[in-house]
Amino acid sequence: MINNIIDQIGNPEIFIQQVSIDCVIFGFHGHQLKVLLPKLKGLENKWTLPGGYIMQNEAIDSAAQRILKERTGLKDIYLEQFSVFGNTERNTYETMKKFLENNGSIPGPNHWSAKRFISIGYYALVDFTNVKPTPSYFDEFCDWYEIKKLPDLAFDHAEIIDKALSYLQQSLDYKLVGLHLMPEEFTMKELQVLYETILDKPLRRDNFQRKMLSLNILERLDKKYTGAANKAPYLYRFKTENQN
Amino acid sequence: MINNIIDQIGNPEIFIQQVSIDCVIFGFHGHQLKVLLPKLKGLENKWTLPGGYIMQNEAIDSAAQRILKERTGLKDIYLEQFSVFGNTERNTYETMKKFLENNGSIPGPNHWSAKRFISIGYYALVDFTNVKPTPSYFDEFCDWYEIKKLPDLAFDHAEIIDKALSYLQQSLDYKLVGLHLMPEEFTMKELQVLYETILDKPLRRDNFQRKMLSLNILERLDKKYTGAANKAPYLYRFKTENQN
Repeated sequence: MINNIIDQIGNPEIFIQQVSIDCVIFGFHGHQLKVLLPKLKGLENKWTLPGGYIMQNEAIDSAAQRILKERTGLKDIYLEQFSVFGNTERNTYETMKKFLENNGSIPGPNHWSAKRFISIGYYALVDFTNVKPTPSYFDEFCDWYEIKKLPDLAFDHAEIIDKALSYLQQSLDYKLVGLHLMPEEFTMKELQVLYETILDKPLRRDNFQRKMLSLNILERLDKKYTGAANKAPYLYRFKTENQN
Repeated sequence: MINNIIDQIGNPEIFIQQVSIDCVIFGFHGHQLKVLLPKLKGLENKWTLPGGYIMQNEAIDSAAQRILKERTGLKDIYLEQFSVFGNTERNTYETMKKFLENNGSIPGPNHWSAKRFISIGYYALVDFTNVKPTPSYFDEFCDWYEIKKLPDLAFDHAEIIDKALSYLQQSLDYKLVGLHLMPEEFTMKELQVLYETILDKPLRRDNFQRKMLSLNILERLDKKYTGAANKAPYLYRFKTENQN
């Protein structure tokens, strides 16, 4: 199966040549921002972002959704295309060659895998508690890694994650990032911890609460039951008409 | 000459196939945000963004700078890559065919120009007063158009300009957009008019001034001479160590 797919990638009738897609999947759990990384078979001690190629008859956003489904089992998730990585020295051949050789394919110097690739970066936001990561045929396993304790990454994938994080930080002011990363109901404190974790700095509680309420994107629910009713915090959820 | 270049674009030894770059060049003049558009020879009543292709040995950012220089005469200008346009129905063939035919080349149905292209969008910010637009060999002329009165655009180029404008609006809060669009010295009122024009809404003068001064990016110079010295506004310029 793998050789067949790899042959297809070299076929310009089926896939656009020299262009790839790489996805950075963010989740939030236990006060940590995490990235979901499948571990490719045949690449020892090197992790890579879930990625793939674009079919001739496929929009790039659809290709990104298909790749995520194939590589991690995740469907219909929130994706934003954030940047293109197009330096000539991304230098992917030695690693690609190793991967292909360890999977029984011997690429020659004119093989498609020896060519330079331009990669379109997407970031995905998922509710950690709803996700069951499923490794694909290509992968040994698929797991979450804290953004501050990432494993060793191949190619320029560490740089792609860094840039995705800075786009995520910038987008906090104008996108409903929390809608995709939080469970359906949460306290204001939990939302603040998410923002503090993404921005990697403490925020003032009163300012944060005032700002969030002024945006008119949250709906206040009943108090969370804690046994000490008078001190229980309110629960919130995002107003559904604001989904983006 | 043109056939030689067009033949080269079809040669996968020289150019990456099925990927293009399109540039939206913003300038600010007479209280208007404007876009610099060269008018291709051979496309009647249809304008296109200055664009081109990526050489095999060329980083995408370098390709964008080269294309801008070739198509408009502009060198070393501020460029930001903002989005990729990759729908399958961008449907560029009929227009490409007309352009090529009107320039003496008859592309068959398997010609490279019949293939679907993914386009990487860049926006550029230039100081209108310093720019001398120069049409290339491919162009009839090259001129500025108000963003609210654009000519008829081919392909999805109107959508590319719309998206570039919304990225420019979002980036006002965290990039020194004014540094690239304003002359070296300006009054606070002139800077406010730039922000109001980009955002297409009025801003409160006191809030705007307070916010700009709090960012610590402006240096105050002598007053502008107007003949009524006590009412003359201060001039400002951007602090050079903040350039980005």
